Amino acid sequence: MSTSAALPAYSSYEHLLVTSPAPLIAHVEINRPSKLNAFSRPVWLEFGRVFRQLSADADVRVVVLSGAGERAFTAGLDVQAVGQDPVLAGRAIDVPRKAKGLRSHLEEFQESVGSAEKCEKPVICVLHGISYGLAIDIACCADIRICESNTRFSVKEVDTGLAADIGTLARLPKIVGSTSWVKDVCLSARDFSAQEALAVGFVSQVHEGKDKAVQSAVAMAVKLAEKSPVAVQGTKELLNHGRDHAVPDSLQYTRVWNAAALQGEDFSRALMSGLRKTKPRFEKL
Amino acid sequence: MSTSAALPAYSSYEHLLVTSPAPLIAHVEINRPSKLNAFSRPVWLEFGRVFRQLSADADVRVVVLSGAGERAFTAGLDVQAVGQDPVLAGRAIDVPRKAKGLRSHLEEFQESVGSAEKCEKPVICVLHGISYGLAIDIACCADIRICESNTRFSVKEVDTGLAADIGTLARLPKIVGSTSWVKDVCLSARDFSAQEALAVGFVSQVHEGKDKAVQSAVAMAVKLAEKSPVAVQGTKELLNHGRDHAVPDSLQYTRVWNAAALQGEDFSRALMSGLRKTKPRFEKL
Amino acid sequence: MSTSAALPAYSSYEHLLVTSPAPLIAHVEINRPSKLNAFSRPVWLEFGRVFRQLSADADVRVVVLSGAGERAFTAGLDVQAVGQDPVLAGRAIDVPRKAKGLRSHLEEFQESVGSAEKCEKPVICVLHGISYGLAIDIACCADIRICESNTRFSVKEVDTGLAADIGTLARLPKIVGSTSWVKDVCLSARDFSAQEALAVGFVSQVHEGKDKAVQSAVAMAVKLAEKSPVAVQGTKELLNHGRDHAVPDSLQYTRVWNAAALQGEDFSRALMSGLRKTKPRFEKL
Amino acid sequence: MSTSAALPAYSSYEHLLVTSPAPLIAHVEINRPSKLNAFSRPVWLEFGRVFRQLSADADVRVVVLSGAGERAFTAGLDVQAVGQDPVLAGRAIDVPRKAKGLRSHLEEFQESVGSAEKCEKPVICVLHGISYGLAIDIACCADIRICESNTRFSVKEVDTGLAADIGTLARLPKIVGSTSWVKDVCLSARDFSAQEALAVGFVSQVHEGKDKAVQSAVAMAVKLAEKSPVAVQGTKELLNHGRDHAVPDSLQYTRVWNAAALQGEDFSRALMSGLRKTKPRFEKL
Amino acid sequence: MSTSAALPAYSSYEHLLVTSPAPLIAHVEINRPSKLNAFSRPVWLEFGRVFRQLSADADVRVVVLSGAGERAFTAGLDVQAVGQDPVLAGRAIDVPRKAKGLRSHLEEFQESVGSAEKCEKPVICVLHGISYGLAIDIACCADIRICESNTRFSVKEVDTGLAADIGTLARLPKIVGSTSWVKDVCLSARDFSAQEALAVGFVSQVHEGKDKAVQSAVAMAVKLAEKSPVAVQGTKELLNHGRDHAVPDSLQYTRVWNAAALQGEDFSRALMSGLRKTKPRFEKL
Amino acid sequence: MSTSAALPAYSSYEHLLVTSPAPLIAHVEINRPSKLNAFSRPVWLEFGRVFRQLSADADVRVVVLSGAGERAFTAGLDVQAVGQDPVLAGRAIDVPRKAKGLRSHLEEFQESVGSAEKCEKPVICVLHGISYGLAIDIACCADIRICESNTRFSVKEVDTGLAADIGTLARLPKIVGSTSWVKDVCLSARDFSAQEALAVGFVSQVHEGKDKAVQSAVAMAVKLAEKSPVAVQGTKELLNHGRDHAVPDSLQYTRVWNAAALQGEDFSRALMSGLRKTKPRFEKL
Repeated sequence: MSTSAALPAYSSYEHLLVTSPAPLIAHVEINRPSKLNAFSRPVWLEFGRVFRQLSADADVRVVVLSGAGERAFTAGLDVQAVGQDPVLAGRAIDVPRKAKGLRSHLEEFQESVGSAEKCEKPVICVLHGISYGLAIDIACCADIRICESNTRFSVKEVDTGLAADIGTLARLPKIVGSTSWVKDVCLSARDFSAQEALAVGFVSQVHEGKDKAVQSAVAMAVKLAEKSPVAVQGTKELLNHGRDHAVPDSLQYTRVWNAAALQGEDFSRALMSGLRKTKPRFEKL
Repeated sequence: MSTSAALPAYSSYEHLLVTSPAPLIAHVEINRPSKLNAFSRPVWLEFGRVFRQLSADADVRVVVLSGAGERAFTAGLDVQAVGQDPVLAGRAIDVPRKAKGLRSHLEEFQESVGSAEKCEKPVICVLHGISYGLAIDIACCADIRICESNTRFSVKEVDTGLAADIGTLARLPKIVGSTSWVKDVCLSARDFSAQEALAVGFVSQVHEGKDKAVQSAVAMAVKLAEKSPVAVQGTKELLNHGRDHAVPDSLQYTRVWNAAALQGEDFSRALMSGLRKTKPRFEKL
Repeated sequence: MSTSAALPAYSSYEHLLVTSPAPLIAHVEINRPSKLNAFSRPVWLEFGRVFRQLSADADVRVVVLSGAGERAFTAGLDVQAVGQDPVLAGRAIDVPRKAKGLRSHLEEFQESVGSAEKCEKPVICVLHGISYGLAIDIACCADIRICESNTRFSVKEVDTGLAADIGTLARLPKIVGSTSWVKDVCLSARDFSAQEALAVGFVSQVHEGKDKAVQSAVAMAVKLAEKSPVAVQGTKELLNHGRDHAVPDSLQYTRVWNAAALQGEDFSRALMSGLRKTKPRFEKL
Repeated sequence: MSTSAALPAYSSYEHLLVTSPAPLIAHVEINRPSKLNAFSRPVWLEFGRVFRQLSADADVRVVVLSGAGERAFTAGLDVQAVGQDPVLAGRAIDVPRKAKGLRSHLEEFQESVGSAEKCEKPVICVLHGISYGLAIDIACCADIRICESNTRFSVKEVDTGLAADIGTLARLPKIVGSTSWVKDVCLSARDFSAQEALAVGFVSQVHEGKDKAVQSAVAMAVKLAEKSPVAVQGTKELLNHGRDHAVPDSLQYTRVWNAAALQGEDFSRALMSGLRKTKPRFEKL
Repeated sequence: MSTSAALPAYSSYEHLLVTSPAPLIAHVEINRPSKLNAFSRPVWLEFGRVFRQLSADADVRVVVLSGAGERAFTAGLDVQAVGQDPVLAGRAIDVPRKAKGLRSHLEEFQESVGSAEKCEKPVICVLHGISYGLAIDIACCADIRICESNTRFSVKEVDTGLAADIGTLARLPKIVGSTSWVKDVCLSARDFSAQEALAVGFVSQVHEGKDKAVQSAVAMAVKLAEKSPVAVQGTKELLNHGRDHAVPDSLQYTRVWNAAALQGEDFSRALMSGLRKTKPRFEKL
Repeated sequence: MSTSAALPAYSSYEHLLVTSPAPLIAHVEINRPSKLNAFSRPVWLEFGRVFRQLSADADVRVVVLSGAGERAFTAGLDVQAVGQDPVLAGRAIDVPRKAKGLRSHLEEFQESVGSAEKCEKPVICVLHGISYGLAIDIACCADIRICESNTRFSVKEVDTGLAADIGTLARLPKIVGSTSWVKDVCLSARDFSAQEALAVGFVSQVHEGKDKAVQSAVAMAVKLAEKSPVAVQGTKELLNHGRDHAVPDSLQYTRVWNAAALQGEDFSRALMSGLRKTKPRFEKL
């Protein structure tokens, strides 16, 4: 991605690299390749922060998320860092007092990762290489998942003695088409391949090599960025609302949402362009 | 479908053609082929009315829904008509006053399309040709979707500058097996093929040519119509209830529902026929 | 399964055979092969009891469920027994009085079958031969479904004049990837094959012959039994919670659940073993 | 209410009298005093229709609902009419076939009564005299309930051999402060007084005599009609939404609702008038 | 209650006394007066059992629940017994393993107490004297609460170092009219009086002395027992459903429930008796 | 409150005064008396921050919240500041673009105010003088509400041309006992008195003069602070969970919550102290 321009507003991140491969597109890379892009607390706090910033940044319409380096999207938690974490490793006076610290720790962690889901712009996640544990939690928060053909996926948490708690178990069954498969991979922590991920619908594209996968993601992002941001961001919002609500509730929410959205310029501009066969331009949102 | 008999009770519809290809089967065709079966307000109001009538009509046990003509199931909204719609195009004093009109307009539209879902008889939707925008909203309200191999599907709304608001975003993710795919097609508005629709589970059959697809739908309808309508309509009701409720809630509802259904004749007739290897006959419902 | 050891604590069951093909694994067989493993009330009451016992038995970590004999997993309800059931066949003074009996009958039946879902250990269900009606209700309550290639599946209830009421209609659409397919098989009661079951995600493995299918299930069970039971049982609990709740609710529940689970030994033992490349041992749960 | 002006747009109702005691106020009276304002099917169908018309009528901002005559708000169902109702009294082939008719009958009845709740304008219900059975169902759908001191209330349904099914059992516990009291009056069908209704919060005002009660309702209506209809109708909508949703859901819905409402004129006009101590005027909604 | 007849079918209970003060009425007394009716595990298991039996017993239409002796309805948990309980006092290998035992213990306890709520007959709870801790959990599961004027209530759990976990915190805010008051008494564990309980709606009657309170409960029970059990039990069911569901959901459930109930004899018998001014007789349910 | 010690950790707040009237108690005062404690954006951002800090501060067990000065708890929004707010007053390109800014503005505002509800320590709110608009939103987020006898309450928003959007409409109906009263005060924006607030259960105590009210709040806080913080904070958490969930859901959550809490020291210490009649001491949480 050498041709990607730096995005000055995002230059302060330490563990994430944010560039712009094309106008209106931000590319976020998890940037600890020497650690297989593993996550310590400073990394996930940055992760939360960057998606909150991207959500509010009218100059960004689509986000591509990937891991830096060749070997891993992310190998998951940085076990060494976790071993030194005072909340996890520390002693507390008794069980409920330690439980309070853990709940609070998990909430911060869940919210950081969940910021990709809450980001109002579409997030296209490109997985490659080792994509273990937290990789799945993160990918589940993206909107579209694509990968390279050699990706090695695993819901690894059971092998570290715990039930996944950053979102995989809540989200994964709602985004793929076989609960029998979900329970198999979550209970066994076994590796699964790109082809398997495609077959069950976890990813919707598989490409040869990380570069091609990233290029495809960027190309898709470019297309989405040309469309009305009112339409695109509304679509993301309404799809996310739908996941967590019964249909009549979502229809009601949709009516109220679009009662404002339909009063914008984008609707008429798109209609006009459609009739005139021109390419519409949409204002920032 | 030239052999289909007219259904006199449904002769007053202007934009829909309702015939009976076989006893107890109604075939509803969207009948504006010169407009690619596009929907203006009078069309969707008729659409709502016909499914309410079919739901109450004891002489109909299964409904087949398709588009008239060769080119399109439906191309979606009739853009010309929309441009003249006083609610959409009109001026209001201010934003909330216009929003009230829009909400009310959307509610009427959603309820019209949703009447196919609420219809107590199974609805088999046959898609062919251009199946854009509203085509998906409508198909999501049917129970079973089949299509011909050349169908061109698109969740087109983003390209017209708005988020789909007649039900696709609420229902589609709950009826197919890959949210990554759903977000791809909903955000990009790109065409997808019959094969792709089959692979993600949007349709469950693909046939060569519209005629074969309609024939298959009718054949399936004939089989369903031979079965106990208490069993068939109860199954539709309980499956629809299940989509919007947690499992314990649905089990409770099921107990109350079947506590009446099991007191009917159909259960014993079906059992008897099973033992005697005869074909049961079931009373109207 | 001749090498399976008997499990003395489970010797009192009349219609179920419970053996242990490997340490920490229980194999439950529906054991009425001469009746195609059909269920009468005594059978389903035993079914409920055995899974409650297995759930509380710290010596069992994974359960394999299958049908005895070559011909059927289960052909469903034992129609003869049902014909003599006083609640179903009996006369009541009037409709609501009979309805009360039926509701209560259905609740007992639903809870018996649902005990496999509520069992805190993973349940791997092996389907083979005739797998009709109740077979699907039961399989939907298991965590992982595998089958042999000649399995004949059917959601048979419509053909017996009733809507399935023991759980299939509530659970099946939430565990596979195509509602169009679900409605097809539930409304038509048609047979579907192992390949079709695999394609829609109902089963996640198909094997040649029942023996291979059972061996694969046992092998999978052995692997799960080696893992931390805190992690494995927590994963089952959180996945089941996720099915019936919105994501924010499940994330909250997860935090509270893991705030206790993370205070156990398994987490550090698994981490240590991972670093030392040894096989961890976990205490009973 | 002799000074009330007739409202021409509402002159076609047969069982309801609709007048306008003050600008922007509609007064709906159940107008079968010789039958104690009892409800037959034509009455409740009119009831549903009038509130749908009022909801859409920009010249009406508040609705007052009362019963005509001195003796009763309503004595409930018109038992004679019910005895001749073909759905209720008629024979059907078997239990589920009759059940279908009954469900459909109840749905129409529930929706007719519920139209007062769905009406976007505030509905102030004045109860007096005999207020039995359906009187409570109807009053529960109003926003504000006031009564005269001699009102005789009763959730009468149990005494007619059935559980109330037009909404009292769903709504009453959510609008008063004591479930012990709710269960007492619903299970016993006993009369309760205006004072008791005030003490538990069912009504919020008690007046001496029906005239004073109606005058108070009209006076209250006049005050509400002077306020911003965007604010008033939004408040009704958000309070109704809140009853059926968890707080985080309602807060989200509120944000989307007010994101349009705050773009109107009413907010700045009200602020200006507040600063200038003048009376604001608000446009129709 | 010396005139109460013994109920032979309930003679095996050790800690509960079940008599019949009038036809169709069962009176359950918590019968450990020397221990202030405190609950150990055998007591609550019996409590669960008796309400399941009463729910199924067609000879019982209403249940009165009270404490034996003069001093207490119940003082709550039997602290001595709790101190010896192996689950609570015992050591487990680690935190999640002990947590599993505790969850299972709490589930059994919650279900035992909750059986009064699930019992299909109305339960009238008479509180007197010391009514601490579990007394409130139990009373919240009854339908109607009445008490004598000297009752001393307390949500005592905070004073024993724990948050109430048998149901008070889930149910109490939904059955009284002031959350500020609920939080006050639940957080402070302070005593509150019969008058205070009446004012917030926790009880709906206060009587002088336990005898009068019990007599009033029995008199109320006699009246409920004369009514249609289809109507009475349906009313309890629908009110309980309403508490846990949004109104549209409850209306749908009501339609399905009453579609069977309205096909019974009770409706026409009650109507006839109403017209003829005779007392209707209703069959057992 | 001159005897209150300053709390150094909270000295940086500009618009809030945080002192400690007693060990383990924090007293937060809205401190803009010259502006009637009106809220501008900096004030509500501080409000959110202080409650997040208090929630995490193990040296604080209970929070008292009041307004500084004699005249007002708070008069609500600082209208002048609002008039200069770029989001509210600013121009946007079109309606949906402005809507996005407004939604985001409202979310920040709602979250700031809601931090009092999310704070894990009990919050006792003392209202006095003018308590308009935002005063009610804030008070609804507290656990216990008390006031002085001259408090003038008003859900003022309708009079400023908008529907209340910071939480009153979502929370108020769930914390008081009469929806008729709620709709009256929310639709009319009329003042209501301390006595009226007590009668409907909005406040649970009324005192003569602000000083007495604050003293009572502090005295109550001192009592709560002596109790087990595990019990107290667990009670707040479970009551809040109960408001937004059905009872079976809350019982499940309670089991998981207490499975950790019951493993602490507080339970046995409290039991011991109870037996020995000593005052227990509990560790920080």
